[in-house]
Amino acid sequence: MADIPARTEIGVTTGAIRGSKKIHVAAKSGSGIKVAMREIRLEAGEAPVRVYDTSGPYTDEAAIIDIHGGLPQLRREWIEARGDVESYDARELRPEDNGQLGPDRSGGVPRFPKVVKRPLRAKAGQNVSQMHYARKGIVTPEMEYVAERENLGRERLAEYKRDGESFGASIPDYVTPEFVRDEVARGRAIIPNNINHPESEPMAIGRNFLVKINANIGNSAVASDVAAEVDKMVWSIRWGADTVMDLSTGRNIHDTREWIIRNSPVPIGTVPIYQALEKVGGVAEELTWEIFRDTLIEQAEQGVDYFTIHAGVRLPYVPMAAKRMTGIVSRGGSIMAKWCLSHHKESFLYERFDEITEIMKAYDIAYSLGDGLRPGSIYDANDEAQFAELYTLGELTKRAWKEDVQVMIEGPGHVPMHKIRENMEKQLESCGEAPFYTLGPLTTDIAPGYDHITSGIGAAQIGWYGTAMLCYVTPKEHLGLPDRDDVKVGVVTYKLAAHAADLAKGHPAAQVRDDALSKARFEFRWRDQFNLSLDPDTAEQFHDQTLPAEGAKTAHFCSMCGPKFCSMKISQEVREFAAKQNSDSYLAAEVPPPTGEGDHAKHGGGASREDAKTRSAEEGMEVMSKLYKEKGEHLYLPAEEVEPSE
Amino acid sequence: MADIPARTEIGVTTGAIRGSKKIHVAAKSGSGIKVAMREIRLEAGEAPVRVYDTSGPYTDEAAIIDIHGGLPQLRREWIEARGDVESYDARELRPEDNGQLGPDRSGGVPRFPKVVKRPLRAKAGQNVSQMHYARKGIVTPEMEYVAERENLGRERLAEYKRDGESFGASIPDYVTPEFVRDEVARGRAIIPNNINHPESEPMAIGRNFLVKINANIGNSAVASDVAAEVDKMVWSIRWGADTVMDLSTGRNIHDTREWIIRNSPVPIGTVPIYQALEKVGGVAEELTWEIFRDTLIEQAEQGVDYFTIHAGVRLPYVPMAAKRMTGIVSRGGSIMAKWCLSHHKESFLYERFDEITEIMKAYDIAYSLGDGLRPGSIYDANDEAQFAELYTLGELTKRAWKEDVQVMIEGPGHVPMHKIRENMEKQLESCGEAPFYTLGPLTTDIAPGYDHITSGIGAAQIGWYGTAMLCYVTPKEHLGLPDRDDVKVGVVTYKLAAHAADLAKGHPAAQVRDDALSKARFEFRWRDQFNLSLDPDTAEQFHDQTLPAEGAKTAHFCSMCGPKFCSMKISQEVREFAAKQNSDSYLAAEVPPPTGEGDHAKHGGGASREDAKTRSAEEGMEVMSKLYKEKGEHLYLPAEEVEPSE
Repeated sequence: MADIPARTEIGVTTGAIRGSKKIHVAAKSGSGIKVAMREIRLEAGEAPVRVYDTSGPYTDEAAIIDIHGGLPQLRREWIEARGDVESYDARELRPEDNGQLGPDRSGGVPRFPKVVKRPLRAKAGQNVSQMHYARKGIVTPEMEYVAERENLGRERLAEYKRDGESFGASIPDYVTPEFVRDEVARGRAIIPNNINHPESEPMAIGRNFLVKINANIGNSAVASDVAAEVDKMVWSIRWGADTVMDLSTGRNIHDTREWIIRNSPVPIGTVPIYQALEKVGGVAEELTWEIFRDTLIEQAEQGVDYFTIHAGVRLPYVPMAAKRMTGIVSRGGSIMAKWCLSHHKESFLYERFDEITEIMKAYDIAYSLGDGLRPGSIYDANDEAQFAELYTLGELTKRAWKEDVQVMIEGPGHVPMHKIRENMEKQLESCGEAPFYTLGPLTTDIAPGYDHITSGIGAAQIGWYGTAMLCYVTPKEHLGLPDRDDVKVGVVTYKLAAHAADLAKGHPAAQVRDDALSKARFEFRWRDQFNLSLDPDTAEQFHDQTLPAEGAKTAHFCSMCGPKFCSMKISQEVREFAAKQNSDSYLAAEVPPPTGEGDHAKHGGGASREDAKTRSAEEGMEVMSKLYKEKGEHLYLPAEEVEPSE
Repeated sequence: MADIPARTEIGVTTGAIRGSKKIHVAAKSGSGIKVAMREIRLEAGEAPVRVYDTSGPYTDEAAIIDIHGGLPQLRREWIEARGDVESYDARELRPEDNGQLGPDRSGGVPRFPKVVKRPLRAKAGQNVSQMHYARKGIVTPEMEYVAERENLGRERLAEYKRDGESFGASIPDYVTPEFVRDEVARGRAIIPNNINHPESEPMAIGRNFLVKINANIGNSAVASDVAAEVDKMVWSIRWGADTVMDLSTGRNIHDTREWIIRNSPVPIGTVPIYQALEKVGGVAEELTWEIFRDTLIEQAEQGVDYFTIHAGVRLPYVPMAAKRMTGIVSRGGSIMAKWCLSHHKESFLYERFDEITEIMKAYDIAYSLGDGLRPGSIYDANDEAQFAELYTLGELTKRAWKEDVQVMIEGPGHVPMHKIRENMEKQLESCGEAPFYTLGPLTTDIAPGYDHITSGIGAAQIGWYGTAMLCYVTPKEHLGLPDRDDVKVGVVTYKLAAHAADLAKGHPAAQVRDDALSKARFEFRWRDQFNLSLDPDTAEQFHDQTLPAEGAKTAHFCSMCGPKFCSMKISQEVREFAAKQNSDSYLAAEVPPPTGEGDHAKHGGGASREDAKTRSAEEGMEVMSKLYKEKGEHLYLPAEEVEPSE
């Protein structure tokens, strides 16, 4: 890992992730599409392991990174080849876009040098959303890219028995471009990629794909700056963030976002109401539809891939929050609640929803329908305000789908474990299986400083139940702005929660990486164990804290037990001891091949419950001793002949 | 928090936990028993919050701590008053007890100065186990202590609606001493407290009590020393460890354990086979029943409260592990497996089980029946070896119960989420509801360095399903020996997982602390928020990283959103705005009191699904506008008049 020399104030981390290299795999169709993946090299003749990769060109040793120029425009040709877009003069930048309305206009960040002056939009009467193409039966290059990306490792599927409980999801053995198209067409998955963000590598968010994670970054009025935010974006995708939300408030919002989008290979989401509020000096009551609409256009032209729109915070629901422990904890939700109450009017987001949809379809921006009334404490979980809003989001989903606009639904917050599943079930039912995108949920309120964990617990569960994307929580949640280290801890925590969910759902081949790592662990291939982990640097560093010597990395023991006590070492000795003996031992009778339950029971050994309970030690010894002699005094049976008996 | 001056090489952390003080609450019976608790003081006239406290005298400002003298013997009188014990000359200490058999006897630690020379044991023919007393209908002081301790906060129960899904547990509203007795009598709970560890504060492990956590400490042949281990014990109970296991191997095992037990207010568990193996120079084949038995007596006299005994690793099960990805990962399990294979004999732990039981009942040591065949990888989860052993543990449980000896059952390891529940169900069924005590489980293998989190996810779930005690995992798992920081992170992670489980199970009053913290958060009482958290120091430190000024701790905003954007602040403004209006507004109609579903629906507002879906914005506005005028143009309704409608 090398830091590129910071030619300006903006430096980011580049270089391959330890023990791996970037590869580009050609799609099977022969279309010429190449999908970026990461390949982890292993020792001892083990086959390399390919893993899903979100890090973009930053981890490609062959790529030249120029933060001031932005990333290559992977999708530009695909977008233009469809013939349904036109370029036009962008809306002019105004001081208030950067929160510099007042007398103090200092502290601005440099503008992005190669800013797009002529963005794209759909030609009059056209709809450029992936959902629209999907519903017309078209397989786009974006869908093909997604299919190849999701299939990773599934070619080894024959080796694995599928397993898991998916709660009614429809996860295929192999993902075809047509499957992607069908999922997008019926709204069960989205591919968020604004036509003005051609730098993005297509990815899908949906219940039948791998569980994704989002990392939030963004400066606030109090802290942070543009260089730190660009660095955080690159840092978060290095460790596995599938999308990044720029939640900046305060000044320099527009310019910060431009730097982020131009350099991001993952979809970028925003909450446009934050910037709109800056434009009216932070006074919610002064927000208007016109200012909000203008902000949508501004961000659409920059290339934001999905917008959080809190259109479900309707006037009648606001008073429901009055009896809550923690009121309205969503920023967007509280802004809209204040607006509604002040004017005593229905939310303009709700009333103008169809007009917003018109903008979304002209740029292919996906809705992330905001959960402005999500619970901010265990006490408030699953209350009437929360579900009232959810049902409205379901209503709005169907309105957006009428116009072929992509939608996902935001959810949870603070929810104790026994109330998590109800959230998923109600969402699936009321939102027609549109992808669920949840914050956590945090499963207790009592651990500030550890809320990446309180929420990782909830995230793994709701991911298992069917949530398509998990919004990360960092250790700083409730306490402060996350720094670079917090971002990494948040991303890795959510990556492991998403993977735990994939395993539990029975995603084909999800277990390939677990198996490769466990095999390396058992065989004392320490470097392989580090390199296969989600965070090789931390794994190696922790190992070296106790046993720093280079020799310890090939030692057949570790610091926990020391050389004599290592159970893995003893297990291996057991196995080796057995391997010295020949194969046709008494074990053929003791643990017979799976020839049926009844047959098994007759053999009187193995793991069946009745056996274990009823056979006394003496009987067992007698049978064994007899067989041992009969079979030529061989002690062990090779692994492949001892199949699981259930 | 002040470090006491280290008068020798052994220093430990003492002093009250931030914002709280130790209190001693008299048991309701008037027996004179006083139960240690911790009380967190709050600002703004809020009632203090009492929390379960495991930290012993170390956090009591009034206590004088003398590591060289050990803790006061809280239980001494209770034990002697029963008249069923006798003191006798302790077994003599031998060099091999401290692993100093070889020529090198250097590196020893100082012996504990006030070592017990005449330990207690049951008089001939007597049984001093809590289970034995319970079955005779006796309520011991230990049971009374437990009842008072568990009841914490339940006096406020009237304020709370019980909630949760307990999967068939029988959690009472209030815990009486008789309830504790009955749970112990039927084996559903244990109170591990060796009569030679009278310093311990009684605690219960059982499905119908609060979920407990265990922290492992211990030196190994490679690293660590006695001072560090005593400090880790005190440090781990400061943050909430309910029991501590001393897993030392290598040299100085005996003396290290003595220092730990004499200074521990929580039960101490060990795995005696580790020390027995040291006594035979680390060669598993050379273990004998006599050496093992001698080790049990040695540790029993020192006061170990529970023994992990891997008596379920039977010879016929060992070959089942040959087809595993990671073989046998339990140290005790692999030692016994090697012994069984080498001698081609049934395990002496299994064969001599009833003899072990005789020792257990003479000192009131609880069995922790070891899961020597627990899975060490996702691949191996729930396999035949694992469950074969579990059924044997069930058989052994019943044998121990016949002699009124307390038992808990060890479980999991690496188990993906969809296979966790099967573990709990099989355990409950085959072990007669004896308390389950599980390591994690880790829900994926791919995150070394973060295995406190991969396992915290599984621990919260299995705790919810019914596991009584969760054995912590630190960030160093698989990589190295945990240091002080790792111990704290492990303990806090498991504490939050156990609490999440308590909430989900519906433990009465578990939510009191969540509610108090969330209320403090909503009211910007930053110090209360820190002090109510599981780790006040980290919470404050994280806050101060972004906004260090003292003033920021009373500020009505935080660094995440800045002063203008804070949603909690806006929520409060919304509420205050509403409070200025009078109460009998249209909301009485808009969100009616719960007078039944049908009635509710007729009012045309609120959260019912049909309403939210079918009422158009215009209709809503019309109704509201009309009501607003009718009701005198008041906008809001006080919280207490707006009850949840479902």
